[in-house]
Amino acid sequence: MRVPVTLFFVELINKGKVKSVYDYDDLVLIEYHDKVTAGNGKRVDFPEGKGAVCCQISEWLFQNLSEQLLTHYVRCPTPNTMLCKKLNIVPIEVVVRNVAAGGIVRETCIKEGIRFPYPLVEFYLKDDEKNDPLLTPDRLNVMGYSPILTDLMTSKALKVNDILVDLFNKLDITLVDFKLEFGHEKNSGHLLLADEISPDSMRLWKKGTRERFDKDLFRKDEGDIVEAYKYILEQLKN
Amino acid sequence: MRVPVTLFFVELINKGKVKSVYDYDDLVLIEYHDKVTAGNGKRVDFPEGKGAVCCQISEWLFQNLSEQLLTHYVRCPTPNTMLCKKLNIVPIEVVVRNVAAGGIVRETCIKEGIRFPYPLVEFYLKDDEKNDPLLTPDRLNVMGYSPILTDLMTSKALKVNDILVDLFNKLDITLVDFKLEFGHEKNSGHLLLADEISPDSMRLWKKGTRERFDKDLFRKDEGDIVEAYKYILEQLKN
Repeated sequence: MRVPVTLFFVELINKGKVKSVYDYDDLVLIEYHDKVTAGNGKRVDFPEGKGAVCCQISEWLFQNLSEQLLTHYVRCPTPNTMLCKKLNIVPIEVVVRNVAAGGIVRETCIKEGIRFPYPLVEFYLKDDEKNDPLLTPDRLNVMGYSPILTDLMTSKALKVNDILVDLFNKLDITLVDFKLEFGHEKNSGHLLLADEISPDSMRLWKKGTRERFDKDLFRKDEGDIVEAYKYILEQLKN
Repeated sequence: MRVPVTLFFVELINKGKVKSVYDYDDLVLIEYHDKVTAGNGKRVDFPEGKGAVCCQISEWLFQNLSEQLLTHYVRCPTPNTMLCKKLNIVPIEVVVRNVAAGGIVRETCIKEGIRFPYPLVEFYLKDDEKNDPLLTPDRLNVMGYSPILTDLMTSKALKVNDILVDLFNKLDITLVDFKLEFGHEKNSGHLLLADEISPDSMRLWKKGTRERFDKDLFRKDEGDIVEAYKYILEQLKN
């Protein structure tokens, strides 16, 4: 049995909306909180067990992805904490979209549920004050993110998509879209997959329906996210 | 002396925020109103002479551009009306940016006044309800606007930029950015430059300063736009 350890002696590096990052020698410890937010922090709830289930789904997915690409995941010392490599995070959110939902539906004339002819890889500025605005390739370039970096993030994001689509297909679930973050490893300079990979940063629909197993349940007040996330974790582990 | 003719006998096709379009046999008649709006129509004013000065600047610029690319301009029967070819308008706004200002400053970490290493051509969905959202090349493509069309609009927009930058350089004015619209001619299918080209859809700064001669005077409540626009018209005609 794994027992949570109270963390008296680690220094907080960054407090995000639902996770905290602590300094841990050469690594960082990421604590997943029992907290969910929507509308850029405007709506908040504190569902019990949410931190642990997100951490454990992330762990399971990072372990599977690590066979094919570099990630920051090291190990989970407790059910809701993850030891990770220390990175310089690229302050860009990378979104892969297989099916239209969310922002792209609000900001174009594309209807929800349309499957794209190819997976779209989109970039957003990680900036809560500006409400995470969409970036074009030109905007990325003039902001100093070279086409080499954006091409690398694109190819890694598409690789993650291939792997996750296969995983969720086996569970009879459509991977609609998801958000990734990347960071450069301090010593090697390698670009590693970072942050969290869980239904908090994905849309997952039961195949052939729009029955959700993701944060939209909270955004739209349609059900219990912890129950839905636990279902996903069980299915992945089976 | 040209005298305005009251238009009893033409049918209104489209009423925009500051212009009306009337059916006129094989052509359309575009009436420029003494009206200015900002914030997607939230702020409104009705400055006398504004319609005529915008129409006349547009006329002067369309006449100059027509030597090098196809435009919808035919002639101006009165100071605030323009006869134009009838087009199927592409519902996309094409913005060319030489210097950072406006939306790109609000939506990135790029500072106002930075000159871009190359002119940026950006596309926005023409949709007031959605607040004219920015489009990426991928979004344009999945919305059904082929890369052939977007490449053609890009090259025409850059051609317009070359011509306008030269014109305004001679007046000691920096062309910061501007918005264009295009449309397909009904019979030939040719893509023509359409809409209006005036300080209502541009940013113009006196060289080496940020003294404005454009709609930002109204947006920021910093001065009389009709006076500023008249100065631009006089300078162009000299």
